[in-house]
Amino acid sequence: MTVAASTQYRTFIDDLARSESGRLLHSELGRRWPETSDQLTEIARYALLPAGKLLRPLMTLHAAEAVGGEPSEVLSAALGMEYLHVATLVHDDIIDADALRRGRPAVPTAYGIPNAIVAGDHLIFSAFAALADEPRLPQDRVAAAVAVLAEAGRDLCRGQMLEAQLVDNLEAGGRWYAEMIRLKTGALFRAVCHIGALLGGAEPDAAAALASYGEHVGVAFQIRDDLLFYTATAEQTGKPAGSDLHNGRPTLPLLLCYDAAAEPDRQRLLTVLERRAAGDNAKWVRELVISTGAVNSARDRMREHIARAHAQLAVLPPSPSVNVLSGIAHWTTSEDS
Amino acid sequence: MTVAASTQYRTFIDDLARSESGRLLHSELGRRWPETSDQLTEIARYALLPAGKLLRPLMTLHAAEAVGGEPSEVLSAALGMEYLHVATLVHDDIIDADALRRGRPAVPTAYGIPNAIVAGDHLIFSAFAALADEPRLPQDRVAAAVAVLAEAGRDLCRGQMLEAQLVDNLEAGGRWYAEMIRLKTGALFRAVCHIGALLGGAEPDAAAALASYGEHVGVAFQIRDDLLFYTATAEQTGKPAGSDLHNGRPTLPLLLCYDAAAEPDRQRLLTVLERRAAGDNAKWVRELVISTGAVNSARDRMREHIARAHAQLAVLPPSPSVNVLSGIAHWTTSEDS
Repeated sequence: MTVAASTQYRTFIDDLARSESGRLLHSELGRRWPETSDQLTEIARYALLPAGKLLRPLMTLHAAEAVGGEPSEVLSAALGMEYLHVATLVHDDIIDADALRRGRPAVPTAYGIPNAIVAGDHLIFSAFAALADEPRLPQDRVAAAVAVLAEAGRDLCRGQMLEAQLVDNLEAGGRWYAEMIRLKTGALFRAVCHIGALLGGAEPDAAAALASYGEHVGVAFQIRDDLLFYTATAEQTGKPAGSDLHNGRPTLPLLLCYDAAAEPDRQRLLTVLERRAAGDNAKWVRELVISTGAVNSARDRMREHIARAHAQLAVLPPSPSVNVLSGIAHWTTSEDS
Repeated sequence: MTVAASTQYRTFIDDLARSESGRLLHSELGRRWPETSDQLTEIARYALLPAGKLLRPLMTLHAAEAVGGEPSEVLSAALGMEYLHVATLVHDDIIDADALRRGRPAVPTAYGIPNAIVAGDHLIFSAFAALADEPRLPQDRVAAAVAVLAEAGRDLCRGQMLEAQLVDNLEAGGRWYAEMIRLKTGALFRAVCHIGALLGGAEPDAAAALASYGEHVGVAFQIRDDLLFYTATAEQTGKPAGSDLHNGRPTLPLLLCYDAAAEPDRQRLLTVLERRAAGDNAKWVRELVISTGAVNSARDRMREHIARAHAQLAVLPPSPSVNVLSGIAHWTTSEDS
């Protein structure tokens, strides 16, 4: 992608947040989680607001609209997708002992681990409550959406478990990476689009296409996140540089680099990871990953998933919402925003 | 209750576990969580099996049957109630740092805190998956049941938060105790019966009566649990004696004792709680709670809730399932099982 195209898609995602659906989601989110003395609501507010791009809710809304659904009827469910996403972040920050999130103290740091456990659970329940909170929708669609979200949640947990088993294991990581990110990140993006389609009244073919679109975007999105350490600054990511090195997590660039590197470099890479000693070695790792071509290979794989996401959209009738979904897929491959 | 009646209800609950519905629940639970090399399933099995009385699933089944529902159609949802209950135990054992559960290592002790967080989440998602997993049911009933379970889950979290805020606070505890156990324990029992009623096709009046029955049984059940320290051995509870004293939790007998005690005893009670120094003082606390009449007062309150639970059942047409629900309410007041 050229610089001009990349800038174009960064503008696109900012415009999307300011679009009618973006503004609706933002204002409804603030209305549903008001300032209050209730501590659970306070923690939820802290975790949810100020909201980011609301990418997942936007995808739910536009998936519904792409199949002829009425966006206002999907608003509550769309916000529920954000609750579930943020719930997983809150629990992840306990598990990974990450002190920072979006450049400020993570929920466990700000409120303690016991409160973070309860707040995460509360957001999970709130996601299902939001999904079941629209009397105007045919209720068989709601029940189908619940089944999809519950399965995605189970997949997320499987992905989390698999990732923990792969820490420090660059050998097994190569074999299991695709499955891990399909579960860890692909599953929720898949569900987000599938649920929008189901609630919007999609025919089975269109629902399956939107679900598959979502999964490919999610997988590409995770690879993009893996790439950020090699292409972005800590300021851009909101996380300390090299935090993936600190926790031994197998990211795609590292795995591809390990595959491609010469033996002495492979050994040093393992040692750096196992010692959690990124500090002085972070620069060396970064250079090795780039010089082995791993950054480019990972980027190629990300673009393959985006191409497959686009191919799924081709089965839908053209509409402004399909254009938005297409734009989101493009944006995923732009790494400077 | 006389000794004879108490023995009768202990027999009743054992018989219930061996009844057709009890055996069906037990065998289906084992079938759905088989032995496997998958770590998430292994932890779920460890947490769920060997199953206890499966009180909540039995209540769901019999609530459904009491309003004319077909038990086999409610089986999956009934098991889901156990998943949610056990999920809260797994997360509670992290929060309370309880090392033992049912007389063996609790999940966080056996598998570590990160795995316990994920396993609890997985059981929550599995509860909703189980609820949405019966195509024979009218799907509007399923959607209504999801809304009830999600709200109950949110209440559980509120109750958990409230309990944490009341630790060591016997003054505020007295004011907030009823609300806390309504949220912490009453809400899930309420949902368990409400969901059975909804899935069984209950009319609104019958559904409301069964929901209210469940809440009163749940509240009575929590008071019974609070009383166990004063009436049962560690062997019977599966928890170290005095663990409530160790974590400063405000139980009803303690709160009533604090209300009734003379000033020097009140001060000593506060000091014992704050120092988490139950060991030598456990016997003194136990005797004070009994001598101030707090055990009897708590028991009276428990029986009031059971009487109100029975009153709710009176609106339903007589049936074997109503008899079972009535028996469960009676059993709750028997403290020796």
